[in-house]
Amino acid sequence: MKNKKSILGLNIAGLVVLSSLLMQAEAKTVKVTMHAVEADLPFDNKGNTYRAWTFDGKVPGPVVRVTEGDTVEFTLINDKESKNSHSMDFHAARLDVVEDFDSIKPGETKKYTFTADHPGVFFYHCGSDPMIQHIARGMFGVIIVDPKDSNALPKADREYILIQSEYYANPDDKKIMMDNDWTNIMFNGGVFKYDPVHDSEATRWLQAKPGERVRVYFANAGPNEFSSLHPIAGIWDRVYPSGNPKNVMYGMQTYVVGPGDAVTLDLISPVEGANAIVNHSMRSAHSGAVAVIIFSNDADPEMGHGENILIR
Amino acid sequence: MKNKKSILGLNIAGLVVLSSLLMQAEAKTVKVTMHAVEADLPFDNKGNTYRAWTFDGKVPGPVVRVTEGDTVEFTLINDKESKNSHSMDFHAARLDVVEDFDSIKPGETKKYTFTADHPGVFFYHCGSDPMIQHIARGMFGVIIVDPKDSNALPKADREYILIQSEYYANPDDKKIMMDNDWTNIMFNGGVFKYDPVHDSEATRWLQAKPGERVRVYFANAGPNEFSSLHPIAGIWDRVYPSGNPKNVMYGMQTYVVGPGDAVTLDLISPVEGANAIVNHSMRSAHSGAVAVIIFSNDADPEMGHGENILIR
Amino acid sequence: MKNKKSILGLNIAGLVVLSSLLMQAEAKTVKVTMHAVEADLPFDNKGNTYRAWTFDGKVPGPVVRVTEGDTVEFTLINDKESKNSHSMDFHAARLDVVEDFDSIKPGETKKYTFTADHPGVFFYHCGSDPMIQHIARGMFGVIIVDPKDSNALPKADREYILIQSEYYANPDDKKIMMDNDWTNIMFNGGVFKYDPVHDSEATRWLQAKPGERVRVYFANAGPNEFSSLHPIAGIWDRVYPSGNPKNVMYGMQTYVVGPGDAVTLDLISPVEGANAIVNHSMRSAHSGAVAVIIFSNDADPEMGHGENILIR
Repeated sequence: MKNKKSILGLNIAGLVVLSSLLMQAEAKTVKVTMHAVEADLPFDNKGNTYRAWTFDGKVPGPVVRVTEGDTVEFTLINDKESKNSHSMDFHAARLDVVEDFDSIKPGETKKYTFTADHPGVFFYHCGSDPMIQHIARGMFGVIIVDPKDSNALPKADREYILIQSEYYANPDDKKIMMDNDWTNIMFNGGVFKYDPVHDSEATRWLQAKPGERVRVYFANAGPNEFSSLHPIAGIWDRVYPSGNPKNVMYGMQTYVVGPGDAVTLDLISPVEGANAIVNHSMRSAHSGAVAVIIFSNDADPEMGHGENILIR
Repeated sequence: MKNKKSILGLNIAGLVVLSSLLMQAEAKTVKVTMHAVEADLPFDNKGNTYRAWTFDGKVPGPVVRVTEGDTVEFTLINDKESKNSHSMDFHAARLDVVEDFDSIKPGETKKYTFTADHPGVFFYHCGSDPMIQHIARGMFGVIIVDPKDSNALPKADREYILIQSEYYANPDDKKIMMDNDWTNIMFNGGVFKYDPVHDSEATRWLQAKPGERVRVYFANAGPNEFSSLHPIAGIWDRVYPSGNPKNVMYGMQTYVVGPGDAVTLDLISPVEGANAIVNHSMRSAHSGAVAVIIFSNDADPEMGHGENILIR
Repeated sequence: MKNKKSILGLNIAGLVVLSSLLMQAEAKTVKVTMHAVEADLPFDNKGNTYRAWTFDGKVPGPVVRVTEGDTVEFTLINDKESKNSHSMDFHAARLDVVEDFDSIKPGETKKYTFTADHPGVFFYHCGSDPMIQHIARGMFGVIIVDPKDSNALPKADREYILIQSEYYANPDDKKIMMDNDWTNIMFNGGVFKYDPVHDSEATRWLQAKPGERVRVYFANAGPNEFSSLHPIAGIWDRVYPSGNPKNVMYGMQTYVVGPGDAVTLDLISPVEGANAIVNHSMRSAHSGAVAVIIFSNDADPEMGHGENILIR
């Protein structure tokens, strides 16, 4: 009887291994092309604009998503209309900073290739000089590298991307950036972008149902400030520094994210109602670093899936 | 022989499970009531006062202590004499930020209930607008959620609570808070409160015996500053981010605690003498963020137990 | 058959234990003597100098390296020519802050002894008043406590020490330090010391071969600023908070290091080329906190070994 159980145990273990192998996607090559574009973009819910520098005309730039082991063939095209040189620094890439992350002039094109060896969520940004200004003006985004073992993380029911950055009243003035003299902290390029509680002109927020596992991919673009990320009225069920499944922390109220870092955080609400994800360094929250997530049984099934993991 | 050993193994395992269950307290309901009270309180050892806003007339507010799984029935009474609305945000609660953490006017009462699902140490604070000011004026404290498995953490011989916060010269001026223009960093609402080394008027400090495991529950109220917590002449034997037993780190010299975060840290001194717990960001330590702990075989047996885990 | 496998299992386990014991060095006593010396030292690649306060005339001070369990007999001699009192605070020591870390006047000598109980990398610094100034002027370094089990960490092919600190334009003015009004962030006491990319007068950088495991022992001296440490074009293969082998994190893009903290980080490049280790809080990187590491098959075999783990 005992022996039989053992054998049964081995068989079950064998099946688990087999199923795990089947769930591992085959490594593939992913082509990614982005355009460096300078454009006037709104930075608040009123539609006030500033001269942004962007990837593909948006702040944040497009979401790149690949699977651990994939090869990324990246092409950067600096728009002919640009006034500045630009470049691309993927934190998921292990390359040569001098050659691969080098700047290109308006009208030029640059290509490089890397393997996404490490699973997680990684910041990307323009690294051209002065980098502090290229980041502050909006040239950033995230690349998600899903683990090749699809069981490495608990299954997320919804996913959202949030990127913190600073707004400087005069983006032409590098000195105020070096002095860290920002006026607002933004999530996804907007002041109170997802906060109808503090800004009556906010029309967007995050959504989920009670009991769902909501996975937040958070990056701190900076360029200068640290973030102390807390979900008001919630607790991070799990926190994965750099998004790596091996780096798991449990039941965390707050997690510190330095500029240039990214992290995966899971949030589950047992009840209907709202949480407010904030940088708990209060002058950041009070100046714009708030994202409201509404937990409702009527949550829009489209939100937190596909294109809607980054709410534009 | 092998089989017998296996069976014995199972039996021992069974006993361990049984004993673990016996040590798990039954979930209970805990009623907690606090009064929001505005009062003149000292912020230094000389007795200089400022207009504090408090829970129960004290800074920090009362220590709440429950066991993982307990239900907390919380009542907030805003004193009739208050000039401001107040509210309560427990970082241990998963609720609705809009409804449950809403502000109440002077003379009003508010109740809500939550289950303390996650073990650890959690910050609590008033979340009324402007939150930066309600925190800076003193409306904060901690709730300790002991693990339901009493063996989840090594047994502590003494326990102390320390909460870092900023002192602003003019607590009526929200702008200096938004500018992060504090003059002092305090522990438990006082400048050099536990530091007879740097302030001859300090009459209080922490105490323990050599070899004892001293558990420090540390929260950073902010509202703005980060903390780099280090015990001078000591090493954190263990650090538990958010106080969760699963998040253990060993032999740590320093741990970064963001505003709105809390952490459990164990300290053991092999010798008689003193350690000085500081925010190692030196302008914080030099302006008041120091707590001296004296390790002596004659340590007062009352200190670090019961009411004396927060030295008033 | 089953029994034989078990016995074999035990035998292999036994051999592993034996081999592990053999690899554990016997605890020894290490005598360390340092001189507190005030001297004019360069802080940039042009050779501009400031009045530094140092251990042994160098910034950073000498590297101390012992093995877990060793006893360190430390002697501090404050030079007769010094204008100030000095002292020594080893973060690896568990002692009495009042007695052992006390200041001595010019011409005096002080001794104390401690056991290096915890493996890792630990910051050391002068703790004399005002400590913010003694650190800012250069009185700091690291002590590496190698694990007694030489297999506790993957073998490093090269090792480098980097220490972040702030440069204040007037090191006589404690007020600008209390205001955190630094002008530059340095690695190992120099602005852009290892950055020939941004400073044509830089003649030094870190070196390794592709595929080598490069271990960086990083300390943040502060005295005030936090660090968000990232290797541009690289990923930290492993991060060990406080350098303790038990605290391992994997595949990290960035790690936050508070002032007064130290950490061990491993870096491996799969390709030839350069990475740039920076404090990704951009005003820090732009003002000097950059260390270029060049990965080349022709890397100097002397670099990253022996004395050359701290490039002077």
